[in-house]
Amino acid sequence: MSDRFTVTYRIFAATPDEARARAEGIALEQTVEIPRDVVPAGYVEDEILGRVKTLERESNETFNARLSYSPDSAGPDLPQLLNVIFGNSSIQKGIEVTGLDLGPTLSARFPGARCGIAGVRAATGRAHGGLVAPVIKPMGLSVAEFALTARRVAEAGADVVKEDHGLANQPTAPFRERVPRLAEAVAAGNAARRAAGDTTQALYFPNLGGASTDLVGDAFFAKEAGAQGVLIIPGLQGFDAIHALARDQSFALPIMAHPAFLGPHVLSDDTGFSHGMMFGTLMRLAGADISIFPNFGGRFGFSPEECAQIVAACRTPEGPGDPILPSPGGGMSLERMPEMMRLYGENTMYLLGGGLLRYGDRIGDAIREMRNTLG
Amino acid sequence: MSDRFTVTYRIFAATPDEARARAEGIALEQTVEIPRDVVPAGYVEDEILGRVKTLERESNETFNARLSYSPDSAGPDLPQLLNVIFGNSSIQKGIEVTGLDLGPTLSARFPGARCGIAGVRAATGRAHGGLVAPVIKPMGLSVAEFALTARRVAEAGADVVKEDHGLANQPTAPFRERVPRLAEAVAAGNAARRAAGDTTQALYFPNLGGASTDLVGDAFFAKEAGAQGVLIIPGLQGFDAIHALARDQSFALPIMAHPAFLGPHVLSDDTGFSHGMMFGTLMRLAGADISIFPNFGGRFGFSPEECAQIVAACRTPEGPGDPILPSPGGGMSLERMPEMMRLYGENTMYLLGGGLLRYGDRIGDAIREMRNTLG
Repeated sequence: MSDRFTVTYRIFAATPDEARARAEGIALEQTVEIPRDVVPAGYVEDEILGRVKTLERESNETFNARLSYSPDSAGPDLPQLLNVIFGNSSIQKGIEVTGLDLGPTLSARFPGARCGIAGVRAATGRAHGGLVAPVIKPMGLSVAEFALTARRVAEAGADVVKEDHGLANQPTAPFRERVPRLAEAVAAGNAARRAAGDTTQALYFPNLGGASTDLVGDAFFAKEAGAQGVLIIPGLQGFDAIHALARDQSFALPIMAHPAFLGPHVLSDDTGFSHGMMFGTLMRLAGADISIFPNFGGRFGFSPEECAQIVAACRTPEGPGDPILPSPGGGMSLERMPEMMRLYGENTMYLLGGGLLRYGDRIGDAIREMRNTLG
Repeated sequence: MSDRFTVTYRIFAATPDEARARAEGIALEQTVEIPRDVVPAGYVEDEILGRVKTLERESNETFNARLSYSPDSAGPDLPQLLNVIFGNSSIQKGIEVTGLDLGPTLSARFPGARCGIAGVRAATGRAHGGLVAPVIKPMGLSVAEFALTARRVAEAGADVVKEDHGLANQPTAPFRERVPRLAEAVAAGNAARRAAGDTTQALYFPNLGGASTDLVGDAFFAKEAGAQGVLIIPGLQGFDAIHALARDQSFALPIMAHPAFLGPHVLSDDTGFSHGMMFGTLMRLAGADISIFPNFGGRFGFSPEECAQIVAACRTPEGPGDPILPSPGGGMSLERMPEMMRLYGENTMYLLGGGLLRYGDRIGDAIREMRNTLG
């Protein structure tokens, strides 16, 4: 078994010769980034330079190329691994990343999710059934208003009480004021739930939306305040922000990834990543335990097939690491839940966002109804 | 003058009504992210909710919409500002960000480049003429080999000795071994240059390509080792990595931004950012002093018009902050330098990468020749 890692690219080209030239171009671009004739002989040429392993026609205008790279080209850090996978080639038209096989060395270096599906279920106490995550929003409300909603949905049976990805350090509810109060509110909801004989609990996930230099500090602040997970936006904070926390043994809480700012990486067929790669494989590589993606039929344009690809990539036993929870959101409603449940099944975290606010003071009823549908 | 900041979006729509609906959708999506009918009255509706200021037809299929947002929706941090500009809307097809006007509050909060064109020139001692930045590469060579090249190009008249964006923590030349040796090599080159009567000097810019949690520490390690600037990849490390260092008074070195992993944000016309926004405006907003972009006519597909747009966005006195240096790279050769100089002019940092290696031991001659062309 080769120790190298393999990336699959969809290459737009008219002829096999053109596709071959483009694939060889990627092998150079992603590693040595110099013309082929000046690649130094020895270690650089034999080990560091990317290699075109296979090249197959996929359609009239596309080919699939599998390229292998040395773990030495990536080194120990995730940013440089992503750089080798798709740094400069991301700026060339007609190249899409569709597959990644880490190989043994990088699989050990990037072991994936710390908690995974099993770990998140264990933390909630819910062994079976779909998981439900109401979203605390909108920005601009006060901490007290957020806390009231958080308590209600926690008491009513939420599995995760997730902050909106837009809650950062706005003046009405800055992170370090907001998080302890919401953690308290969720704890109070959980206490009421326990008193009623429920053996499950809601986990509170604040959003780490502040300055990048505060991210790790904010994560530990949240943990000490009672949060049981965090939300991170890798498109804004970098995938390595997830990785850093996932690998920190003293943190060890589940991490939910949000897709904001990553859209252009999937919206075009001829650049970026396939949907499954971005919202499944890359999130697992970084160490996310839950991956949010825009559900079809809502206000985003993903197709059912694209969503199914994401779900499959989150759950495949082939890795990276342990399977994680796909988390469809956007345009989710109680009416659609039975359809969603048939499609996505129970190992899914269903986000319920703005629509929930229609229920006003009776938001708990909506959560209870949703729980009934999710089994 | 309104205190709100304004973002211009190109919206793909067939009719004015459809465009209006999409624009109102963006106003919701980028702020409260809830349906219009449940937006709470008062502060949230009056201040936080985005507003469609103008909507004009641009072409048969596109409209330009200017939306204003409250500084309160962004708060103090760059990640959340970017989130308001284009977080969730990045995942909807047919929306491109083409303009940003910070307004007074955010202009003060995000003052842009610390050094800018004037600061970088002052640090090099080169008051006039194009600036030249040879790139140290390829990955896989030893520290000693990199150091030899660094010394040669520094002595020959380089303005910036830039590390390849692929040099991270690879086993043959990890950051903390490499940087002090290359800083020494560039210093030795500068000493020889001074001895020959040259009043300019080369600045050494190592690449901060390691773990995100090491980034600030690595930057200060580099500064203490003698580096006079740094290279950052915002597509991998996040734009806020640039911002954090640009705003750190005790760091205060120029920052060069690399476009890797950002390609999908500009390659499609119907999603992401315009070229000028991404490689001019956003880089200035983050605080970069030099913005690398793929030159036309090389192995990347940018057009001369797209490159001109980037250059204009880097240099416009309208901000954000002070003008910065555009830095075309990719496919640059000595033969093309006169053409490039006519097109881009002197307030430009010209990257010379892989082609330089053709000169082998005579790499210094190539730099001298390039300097002659750049005036």
